Amino acid sequence: MVVNVALVGVGLVGSEFIRQVLSSTSKQIAIIGVANSRQMLTSATPLTSSWKEDLAASKLPFSLDSFTESLQASKAQYPTVVMDCTSNQAVADYYPRWLEAGFHVVTPNKKAFSGDLSLYKQIRSLADSGKAMVYHESTVGAGLPVINTLNDLVATGDKIVKIEGIFSGTLSYIFNNFSTLDASAKPVKFSEVVSVAKELGYTEPDPRDDLNGMDVARKVIILGRVAGLDLSQETISVENIVPQELRNTSAEEFMTKLPEFDAHFENLNNEAIQAGQVLRYVGLVDPVNGKSGVTLARYPASHPFASLKGSDNIIAFTTERFPSPLIIQGAGAGAAVTAFGMYSDVLKIAERTRQ
Amino acid sequence: MVVNVALVGVGLVGSEFIRQVLSSTSKQIAIIGVANSRQMLTSATPLTSSWKEDLAASKLPFSLDSFTESLQASKAQYPTVVMDCTSNQAVADYYPRWLEAGFHVVTPNKKAFSGDLSLYKQIRSLADSGKAMVYHESTVGAGLPVINTLNDLVATGDKIVKIEGIFSGTLSYIFNNFSTLDASAKPVKFSEVVSVAKELGYTEPDPRDDLNGMDVARKVIILGRVAGLDLSQETISVENIVPQELRNTSAEEFMTKLPEFDAHFENLNNEAIQAGQVLRYVGLVDPVNGKSGVTLARYPASHPFASLKGSDNIIAFTTERFPSPLIIQGAGAGAAVTAFGMYSDVLKIAERTRQ
Repeated sequence: MVVNVALVGVGLVGSEFIRQVLSSTSKQIAIIGVANSRQMLTSATPLTSSWKEDLAASKLPFSLDSFTESLQASKAQYPTVVMDCTSNQAVADYYPRWLEAGFHVVTPNKKAFSGDLSLYKQIRSLADSGKAMVYHESTVGAGLPVINTLNDLVATGDKIVKIEGIFSGTLSYIFNNFSTLDASAKPVKFSEVVSVAKELGYTEPDPRDDLNGMDVARKVIILGRVAGLDLSQETISVENIVPQELRNTSAEEFMTKLPEFDAHFENLNNEAIQAGQVLRYVGLVDPVNGKSGVTLARYPASHPFASLKGSDNIIAFTTERFPSPLIIQGAGAGAAVTAFGMYSDVLKIAERTRQ
Repeated sequence: MVVNVALVGVGLVGSEFIRQVLSSTSKQIAIIGVANSRQMLTSATPLTSSWKEDLAASKLPFSLDSFTESLQASKAQYPTVVMDCTSNQAVADYYPRWLEAGFHVVTPNKKAFSGDLSLYKQIRSLADSGKAMVYHESTVGAGLPVINTLNDLVATGDKIVKIEGIFSGTLSYIFNNFSTLDASAKPVKFSEVVSVAKELGYTEPDPRDDLNGMDVARKVIILGRVAGLDLSQETISVENIVPQELRNTSAEEFMTKLPEFDAHFENLNNEAIQAGQVLRYVGLVDPVNGKSGVTLARYPASHPFASLKGSDNIIAFTTERFPSPLIIQGAGAGAAVTAFGMYSDVLKIAERTRQ
């Protein structure tokens, strides 16, 4: 039994997925296509570890249409997955055409699931009609079993009371280090933590792209939609913690001037600490009160969010059956764990299409 | 698309599963058989909320053979799941016959997965051959996504370094209350905590059946086997924390005499607390050092096991891809969450057998 996979986008995550598949002893999955924004390569026989050189040598210019066309022969023979490893809107917009044509879609790209609601509904309805399957475990918390668990809760009729979590490795790292009740930890300034996070490569090139909450907002929207809510950027509230005065400066100026706002963050932190609490930047899906969004919140020492370490993500599902929440925690970023989530998704398609 | 389910055993968990299925708006799953140790009832049309009365009125005596025979018509028409909601060895021994005959098996019964290794291998090999599927999410941590997550890690080629967890709601409750670094918590005696746990219905009728570690050992064996290790009762070490002197007394005498050993447990606890640690009774799967087993261990305040509350379970998977472990936490006992795990399992079979 074989499932064929063709990747659009072969950066860190795509390459790692291919590496994981090629090192597997079970030959369930064959990589039969790869493409970057310029070139593409498809093959009737599975690609091997020389795929990078083979792709570089390919003279075929990439377009979504021609890549799709070149996968028709594969699809006629085996279940075929198109794996979108870009963060591109144009690729996301193409999912309905793939699904209509019977290609399954697996992706860590958040765009289709957190953007335009009508695109999301179109994709969902095509998947529900049974034409082809869509899996996107790695869009939230990388390979942590977040989407699958939420799907199981919803499909078995549990009632979602609240989904709360730290969905950004970057913001996890920043606040775990900045705001702690551990008396032995040396106090640090907010700007210093951001600066270290940037140096470690944890932040986006411009850290405001993390601190504005938009990445967390996208994950809130995805989880909300899986839970059955019609969330969108317009309907959730997002607390942007970038100081107003630094929102329209250059990225360099932002880093230079951030220390001027250290007192502001220190005040917030001190207020929390004095109340025996810590600051955490969290996403919230709130079907009961309709207050889904992203916010800088406070948690007591005994709360699992307070003892989070490193850049781990954490997600707490409070439901009718789990009044004490079901919690999932662990690395929510990085190529190895993101590719793991995509690989698990492909294996689920393999199981469901077994002849 | 319909999957038929027939239940052997309709106690708390079985009844709750039926309740969850009957309250679902999607009519994907039909309950077409129920049996207790005396009577059975199978039906060509789905059972309804009057199933208890209908079963009580049934004149058909139960036997595994006759129940199986009466499900042949169902299987000819739809994928059919036999759900074992007993904790019976004889039912577990029957799984190979069901699988051979093409019945899928879903169960929270630990016997087949933690007992005789040859039975386990026979079941696994029948499932792998594609004859029929076996799902047993609820055998560890009730509905927490433990087995599925471990399966995904293994199937995608991750290397399991360690699986460590608090797999017993009873022992979670006892040690969360007995051993805490929270200075505001009133110190309690070990025998008192056991006594309260018993009154709350958290323990087995004889609490030694929890404290001897055998239930945790079964879960360690299940997880180890899913991870690819040939664990069995004989090959793992189990720390029985029932004092030697109380192992052969009556259950009443055990409860009466347990206070005589309070000083013993208090000493252990004080040693831990003075080192800034707490006592937790944990199960360990250890493929690297071959030291799988059950033990009373100590954890520092910053460890997720130390801040566990109530009777929650917690499981930490340390792997090559998750050096900082992937952690799953939440209610690991109770009819609602156990039935949730079984329901999720049936839906996976429904997805995989969709025509």
